[in-house]
Amino acid sequence: MIAPLIFTGQAIELLDQNRLPDEVIYETCQTAEEVAAAIRELKVRGAPLIGIAAAFGLALAVKHYKGAPEQLESYFLKYKSLLAATRPTAVNLFWALGRMEEVFRQYEKQGISWLQEALIKTAEDILAQDIKINQAIGDHGEKLLKENSRILTICNAGALATGGYGTALGVIRTAHRQGKISQVWACETRPVLQGSRLTVWELMQDKIPVTLITDSMAGYIMQLNLVDAVIAGADRIAANGDTANKIGTYTLAVLADYHHIPFYIAAPHSTVDVNIETGSQIPIEERSHLEIKQFRGINLTVPEASVFNPAFDVTPQQLIAGIITESGIINPPFQKNIRQHLMQIRGGER
Amino acid sequence: MIAPLIFTGQAIELLDQNRLPDEVIYETCQTAEEVAAAIRELKVRGAPLIGIAAAFGLALAVKHYKGAPEQLESYFLKYKSLLAATRPTAVNLFWALGRMEEVFRQYEKQGISWLQEALIKTAEDILAQDIKINQAIGDHGEKLLKENSRILTICNAGALATGGYGTALGVIRTAHRQGKISQVWACETRPVLQGSRLTVWELMQDKIPVTLITDSMAGYIMQLNLVDAVIAGADRIAANGDTANKIGTYTLAVLADYHHIPFYIAAPHSTVDVNIETGSQIPIEERSHLEIKQFRGINLTVPEASVFNPAFDVTPQQLIAGIITESGIINPPFQKNIRQHLMQIRGGER
Repeated sequence: MIAPLIFTGQAIELLDQNRLPDEVIYETCQTAEEVAAAIRELKVRGAPLIGIAAAFGLALAVKHYKGAPEQLESYFLKYKSLLAATRPTAVNLFWALGRMEEVFRQYEKQGISWLQEALIKTAEDILAQDIKINQAIGDHGEKLLKENSRILTICNAGALATGGYGTALGVIRTAHRQGKISQVWACETRPVLQGSRLTVWELMQDKIPVTLITDSMAGYIMQLNLVDAVIAGADRIAANGDTANKIGTYTLAVLADYHHIPFYIAAPHSTVDVNIETGSQIPIEERSHLEIKQFRGINLTVPEASVFNPAFDVTPQQLIAGIITESGIINPPFQKNIRQHLMQIRGGER
Repeated sequence: MIAPLIFTGQAIELLDQNRLPDEVIYETCQTAEEVAAAIRELKVRGAPLIGIAAAFGLALAVKHYKGAPEQLESYFLKYKSLLAATRPTAVNLFWALGRMEEVFRQYEKQGISWLQEALIKTAEDILAQDIKINQAIGDHGEKLLKENSRILTICNAGALATGGYGTALGVIRTAHRQGKISQVWACETRPVLQGSRLTVWELMQDKIPVTLITDSMAGYIMQLNLVDAVIAGADRIAANGDTANKIGTYTLAVLADYHHIPFYIAAPHSTVDVNIETGSQIPIEERSHLEIKQFRGINLTVPEASVFNPAFDVTPQQLIAGIITESGIINPPFQKNIRQHLMQIRGGER
């Protein structure tokens, strides 16, 4: 399986996802500014992977610090803010930056060299843990699927969206190894086409059977009884289970409900934002109108056209059959069960 | 308003819809073969307009007839078949060709010159009637809409899909003249982008407020309470009211149902196929995979990817709030009311 991010000791190598599937090219990022630009430009994307990349960005910033010890804190916080401002919806970014700050606070009095090493080590841990987390999500999630499952997914919640292996595609990957997958339906995922460009490519690399459809065909294939389950990733999960994910996910959840097909979310604990009660509090990123109006500089519509381009939507918890996490499936009612599940796990970790 | 098809006496000039909105260029079609190619290649599209173009194609074929009188019938039927084979789903095509055949049967014994004139006259009538029909659809449909309506539509059921004025966009056009439209949401309509390329352009020409979204955003804007009604065109309506239209229409109908938003179909009587009982009997055209895999020759996915590309889907009658026709609104239950409505009208015509 391809690695979307490689730490070389001096820099990170990011697989440029805007150039997939035409070209498999890694871009070297040596500074936090370069990492922030890569996140903004979607060269690196996917909620967990954004968090990992940002953690390395912050570690690299401190690694390059040449100033006086008394300015280190403001330097650190400046780069934390820069990285936090790249994308507003996925919470894993803030979670990873928060974890980096905890380590910063722990080591800031112990000298720059200890601190630099501790931050690098933490970013490496976040990356390594994420792969294990995804494998655990896959192990738990595959149990939900029956033989010959036909799974519909949107965007790319795969190896390319995480440290490796994937959340929604991690479940599919594990189930495929068990011989349980007869078909994956990949929604192309307008406007940025992560489905066509990334999910199809990623699954074909692993020889997992995948068929590409436009987002507008999801209802029709459900009507034809060609879908057994929908599995999507998540950018943020509110305390009550409401889940933000790629625009179009909510439509799939409504369609799944209408056709009595289970709709699952696959995401690590770090995607749960216990600080917000419901999905209405999740900020929804609006992106450039050119994503819809142009393709590689070619106009798709009248250049002066009015456009609305929200990058995410929120699926209310009542449409979700289960949230697949690294510590098992959280079932409805989510308001009670998310809290209980996380408290048990965190209790168990102590 | 722009005319999508102009008869010059010797040929038809078709507005090449593949080149919109970049270029407004008419293509001259002098023969039935040229008309058939223009239909297959989507230079001319939209259920009513396909019927009109095919009628002219057949009239032009007979106009150019140089053979012996006894071969005329097989010549006529050959070109009727050629035109009928261009696209399988929209029934207006077969309706228009059937009407041309009726006229052929009526005049075939009266000499070639009478016949040629009668066929041209019939095609011109179909065109002129279609515009009046659309205006009547607009008059009836606008009464369904309240002040400050925000209407969601898909594909292009506008002047560009008809003789002029439009079905779904005809309703919007008349309602806009009454000051009732505050917003039209145009779904871009993958894979061929008739929403971005045609509907946005057509509505902007008439200064009707329109905002472009991807198909995947429809659920989200309904959730935000930004849609008062959905209005779509139709390619074929079964006797029970089940309606085939552009792929994605069924998804909009399910979403509208979930959000308690009325979902209307706007279409002329010629779209009703009383020979079929339910939508399951409507043939669904599958088009080239390249429509999804490429954009102007640029790969959007892995070239070897598996793709499913149905051009239409069928919305079951129970999701439709009303069918807007030139003789008024047909309300549920459609099984009974479509038959009753058409029998009354046809009775009244006699």
